[in-house]
Order: sequence, then C-alpha cells, then structure tokens
Amino acid sequence: MKINNPKPIAWQFSRRAQQLQSSVIREILKVTMRPEIISFAGGLPSPETFPIERMKEAFDTVLSRQGKVALQYGPTDGYGPLREWIAQSLSTPDNRIAMEQVLMVSGSQQALDLLGKVLIDEGSKVLVETPSYLGALQAFSVYQPEFVSVPTDDDGLLPREVEKIADGARLLYALPNFQNPTGRTMPVERRLQLVETCARLGLPLIEDDPYGALSYRNEPLPKMVAMNPDGVIYMGSFSKVLTPGIRLGYVVAPVPLIRKLEQAKQAADLHTSQLTQMVVYETIKDGFLSQHIPSIRTLYANQCQAMLDAMQEFFPAGVTWNKPEGGMFIWVKLPTHIDSMQLLEEAIEHHVAFVPGAPFYANEPEKNTLRLSFVTVPPAKIREGVEKLAKLIAAKMK
Amino acid sequence: MKINNPKPIAWQFSRRAQQLQSSVIREILKVTMRPEIISFAGGLPSPETFPIERMKEAFDTVLSRQGKVALQYGPTDGYGPLREWIAQSLSTPDNRIAMEQVLMVSGSQQALDLLGKVLIDEGSKVLVETPSYLGALQAFSVYQPEFVSVPTDDDGLLPREVEKIADGARLLYALPNFQNPTGRTMPVERRLQLVETCARLGLPLIEDDPYGALSYRNEPLPKMVAMNPDGVIYMGSFSKVLTPGIRLGYVVAPVPLIRKLEQAKQAADLHTSQLTQMVVYETIKDGFLSQHIPSIRTLYANQCQAMLDAMQEFFPAGVTWNKPEGGMFIWVKLPTHIDSMQLLEEAIEHHVAFVPGAPFYANEPEKNTLRLSFVTVPPAKIREGVEKLAKLIAAKMK
Repeated sequence: MKINNPKPIAWQFSRRAQQLQSSVIREILKVTMRPEIISFAGGLPSPETFPIERMKEAFDTVLSRQGKVALQYGPTDGYGPLREWIAQSLSTPDNRIAMEQVLMVSGSQQALDLLGKVLIDEGSKVLVETPSYLGALQAFSVYQPEFVSVPTDDDGLLPREVEKIADGARLLYALPNFQNPTGRTMPVERRLQLVETCARLGLPLIEDDPYGALSYRNEPLPKMVAMNPDGVIYMGSFSKVLTPGIRLGYVVAPVPLIRKLEQAKQAADLHTSQLTQMVVYETIKDGFLSQHIPSIRTLYANQCQAMLDAMQEFFPAGVTWNKPEGGMFIWVKLPTHIDSMQLLEEAIEHHVAFVPGAPFYANEPEKNTLRLSFVTVPPAKIREGVEKLAKLIAAKMK
Repeated sequence: MKINNPKPIAWQFSRRAQQLQSSVIREILKVTMRPEIISFAGGLPSPETFPIERMKEAFDTVLSRQGKVALQYGPTDGYGPLREWIAQSLSTPDNRIAMEQVLMVSGSQQALDLLGKVLIDEGSKVLVETPSYLGALQAFSVYQPEFVSVPTDDDGLLPREVEKIADGARLLYALPNFQNPTGRTMPVERRLQLVETCARLGLPLIEDDPYGALSYRNEPLPKMVAMNPDGVIYMGSFSKVLTPGIRLGYVVAPVPLIRKLEQAKQAADLHTSQLTQMVVYETIKDGFLSQHIPSIRTLYANQCQAMLDAMQEFFPAGVTWNKPEGGMFIWVKLPTHIDSMQLLEEAIEHHVAFVPGAPFYANEPEKNTLRLSFVTVPPAKIREGVEKLAKLIAAKMK
C-alpha cells in the first residue's frame, strides 16, 4: 500500500546541522581497524582490562534481586546510591560534595552536549586549550560558539593568558590530567592559579577528567573542583576505569546548574539506563576499583614505556615528544615542514597508523603534530610500529 | 586545598535553556508515586510484562561469548545485526527498508532531540497534533520553533487542515497508533491521505510509533513509512514491547537524513550502549517478541476493559471518553467548566491521580481534558479509583 509518484524531499537542515561533520578521527579509525595495521590511532581503552566476569555477576545479581526496578523508567538525575557513591568519592576533608550536585549521563560526551546546550548561544565566546579534546570541540560546535584557543605550555593552560581574553566568555574547558591529545598534566600550583583566576573573573571552569585515575606512579593530583566547588564543573566517566561500551558518566556542579542540565537531559533522553547504573554500583560498591585500577595502570605504564623506549631508539633527531605520567597518549612534534596528515597516508600504506594533530586545534592548527596511543597494542608490536613510523619520518627529513 | 573567598558564579544560561522547564508530568508523577495513591497518571509500562529471566540469560550469553566487543566503544549508527533485524521487520513486499536507513538511539526521546537539532532553527514552523505527545513538545521546544497545532478529529490529523497551514513548515509530527495522550488511532484511509498530502507538499512527516505493536484485537495497521519511505521518518522503541529502563529506540529515515542524524548523535553521546543493543538482539532474534507481545496485549486489553466498564458504571452523564483499540491510555472530556488541573489537586487528596490534558496542547489548551492510564493498576483498584474520581467529577457538576 504505497502512494503514487512521491516527490522526493529536499531536506532543509538547521543552520547548526549544516556545519556538523563526522569526526575526522572516527573516519581514520574505520581505515585503521584493518587487522594488518598496527594502529596507534585509537582512543579506546584496552579490552584486556574489562572486568567481564565481575560485571556478568553484577547483571545477574541486579536482575535477580531488583529486575522490575532496573528495567523500568527511572529518575532523570540518576540512580541515588551511585550518585551518593560519586559524591563521597569526590568529597575531601574541607569540601563535602552532596548527591544533589551529581547528574548521571550517558557517557561524558553527553555531559559536553548538555553543557553546550545550556551555556552556549550562537556566537558565545568559549575558551579551550591549545590543542583541546576533539569530542568537546565537536559537542560545543553544535551550538555555534566562537572558540578562542588559550595559549598553553608543557604544564597546560596559562592563567595569565586566560585573564587577557576572558572578557565575555561563557566558559573555559580544560582537561588537566593526561590530556587528550597531548598526554600532559597540569601541576598543582598551576591548578590553583587557574581556579583562582577563573573564580576572580566569574568564569565557569569545566574540569574534564576521564583519565585522572590512570596515574602511573603517584596518587592522582588534587582536583580543581575541590579547590572551588562553586565555580568548577567536574566531568567524570566509567569508560576508562571500567568499560566504555556501557556509556556511563557524570557531571558534578553547583545545584542551579545541575537542575538546568537535568531539564535539558529530560528533553534529550529522559534518563540514562537504570540497569547500567545499578550494575555499575553493584560492581564497585565494595571497593572493587581500588584493586582494579592498579592493574590498568600497570598495563598502560608498561606499554607507554615500551613506546617511549622505541621512540628513543628509532625516532630521528629533530622529533620531540613528552613523557606522560598517566593516561593513554603521547604527543609528538615533527619538524615544522612535515604535515602529519600527509604522513598518515604513507603510514597507512606501510601498515601503521596514528592520529594527526590538526583536528584538535580549535583555531590555527600545528600541522606537524600527531597523537600516539599505546594502550591497545602489545609491546613487540609497539616497537615494530614505531620503527616503521620512524623510517617514514626520517625519509621526509632528508 | 581550597582557594580563598571565591566569588559565586552568576550563571548565564543560553536563551534556549532559559525557557526549559521540567515536565509537568514528571512533577505530578513524583507526588503520585506515594503507595496510598491509585495512580492513573503514569505512562510507564507494567513491570509484570518485563521478560527478566530471558534478558538475564541474554546478558549472560553476550558477556560470555562477546564480552570484549560488547563492553568496548561501538559504531555511532548502532549494532549491525539489530539494525538489520529492524530493517527487515519494517520491510513490506513492495518496500524494502535497508539497514543503512536505521539509526539506533538511546530511547526514542533521543530521536526527538536529534530530529529537533537537525531540522529546527529558531522560529521554524513545526506542525503538531492537537493535542500532541508532551515529550515531543519538550524535545523540540529546546530548538525554539513556532509550534502550530493542526486540527484533529476522532481519527487524528485532518489532511486538508495540514494543507492550509503547511507553507514553510519544517516538519509534521504525528503519533498514529493509540496516541499519547488521546489513545486514538488513525485509520488506513486517513494515513494514505496524510502521507499523500505531505508528499505533495514536500513536508517531512514524522511517524512516532512506540505503541503500534500493542493492538488489542487486530493486526497493527499499515505504517505510514511503508506508504512513502522517501518522505516519512519512522521512530520505534523497545520500551513498550520489552523494557524501557534499558533506553533503546531507533529512527528509520532516508539516508541523507540518517547520515546527518548520525553526526548529531556522535556529538551528543558517541553511540548507544553496545551491550544493550547486543542483548536486545540476543533476546529477540529467534522470534521471542511474537510470543511475548500477545501477553502484553492481553494484560492491557483486560485492564482497559476494566477501566471502560468502571467509567460506564460510575462516570456522570456529560463526561465523554474514547474506547482505545490498543496502547496504554484513555482520554476523557469533562464538561467545559471543569479545569482538570484543579480536579487533580482534589483527586490527590482523595488518593487517586491522573494527568491533566492541558500540557499536551502546543497552543490553546482544552483544560477540561485528562489522560488515564490503566496499565499498571490491577482491575479491582481500577474500579475503586474510577469510582472515587467519578464522585469528585459529579460533585463539580451539581
């Protein structure tokens, strides 16, 4: 039962949709998933770290004991016991975080979308790091802000530079621990200066912290939200300490903002899976993460070291990189005449891949940069891939 | 480690966020969840219908066999085998739906948000039914359209009225099967006329179909997407045929629109839980729904009949209502001088609850309307609640 000769629709997309693009990285990942390629391009955690058995038991327990609740519609702000657990885990002796400040979201990408929705008008000034996390640039760009890149050094954002350009800005977005893409970490002193500067300016500071727990050597550094809970919006995630495929993250912020975000979330997807939240709570409530996270740290630290060793051995002089203290990424600077996007084409032909740095810049890209991830590649393959890459770079330096 | 004397932030919300409100219904539901209240207010499916054991087995199977894939990041468009299953289930002899036309979403509320994001600019004309589904009005209103309510009769939208006001409109949103809130169904002839009218006008037609499978007596009516797959955007959900707490729905649309929605989804939450999608596929792939759905239909049909019988017995003359052929709701019209919002306050005092009709109108509300749900209340309680409500209404008619 069909109508005759329908006229095809000439789709008229909204202005915000017209400038939407698929992530360059997702496009690259499709190519680099071919099994013959040694891929340093992924931003995926290692599936070796997924606590599959434990989560299977948790699903069984939750469905057996509370199936009807877990499978029913739930509250928009999230599952109470898990919100309480998060509030406690972020509280410090001089700062009590309340459960009312916690909103559960469907992965922290959703927190970025909701924050953009609620804080950004067309043309709003939004301050970001140089370079910044691509997923944040994507999420915010839907709401058509004017991005301003804040100058950085090896310790991250420069507070005096923030001060110079903050006038009229709606927010500053920062990723202080083992940043994606650069792997760099903001030291405590710098955090204090930055928080103080933002507080003085009345500028909301977003602290995105997906990798904070993955510190290789020391205890994680103090969080900025603990330095000023009235001015910092904290974003956390279970993707890197448990598993990403379940899509579970959270935002911690002052209550007036949380209530507005909750309204936006209600319109966006009603709530995040009750079952997922209850299972994650069941999995972690007895302290599981304090045994589990060290095993992830050890795995990643070893693979990071394997990559650093190989880079030291094979990369030609004139190429520089950082030594991350945690997380999943190493940032590489090539001589300025080498465009890493062109290098990638050759690299893929030689069965090795990475992510070019340019898409991580909101404004002027440094095209001679690239991001390497070591977490899903075993050490022997890391060595092989780095050697191949080094040869391709060296050939361009002759 | 805290900074001294922080200045509290004066939150500046975006214009779209300033007009965001929490759903009136969600506020009502909080009150009506008190156990002493007989609540006809919910829009929740009955947890008696949740196939808990079967889903527990499916979680076990998927995690045992494919845990590392299920718990890893996945593709934005969704899990291939499930998309293929959906495409096949919607294909008809003269209309093959392809998997490329299917996008998985985190509950069909997310489909509404993404469609609003991609199709609506500030001030865009958006056509909706009179009355319409509140969640759609909420989702679209974030993007600040100008809503125009299309006149309806007992068979739903009037195509000749659409024609009169369609000029410049971006979309028409319709819920043809057992509509929320009215419970009414659009007959086949009307569907054809509406699809033909929209096709002639080049007007995108959204067919939201969460309840379509819950037909009490007959096979579900032909879907509008089958009448013109090039012009109809179909939205489906697993919330009413399986369980809502897992948050899983889908959109079926022409490929150019699906690709744009996919980009918007990538920025909004990367993808919907892989694990959830794989478990739902595992649960339904061998034809489970064809045994399961009839049991839901029987339960709801019996409770619907219990409510209709009680209304017939107790409601005073001058009150009218429809007899739904499926779904979860009955729509009641009181004499025009009775405001159902005021009636609700008295009703709650007498421990019975419903949802007033006014919030479902995008423009001029009919304040003498209300929505009753029968699916989560057993027949004896339905009778008791309807009798109470009837007395309160009768008292207002003296």
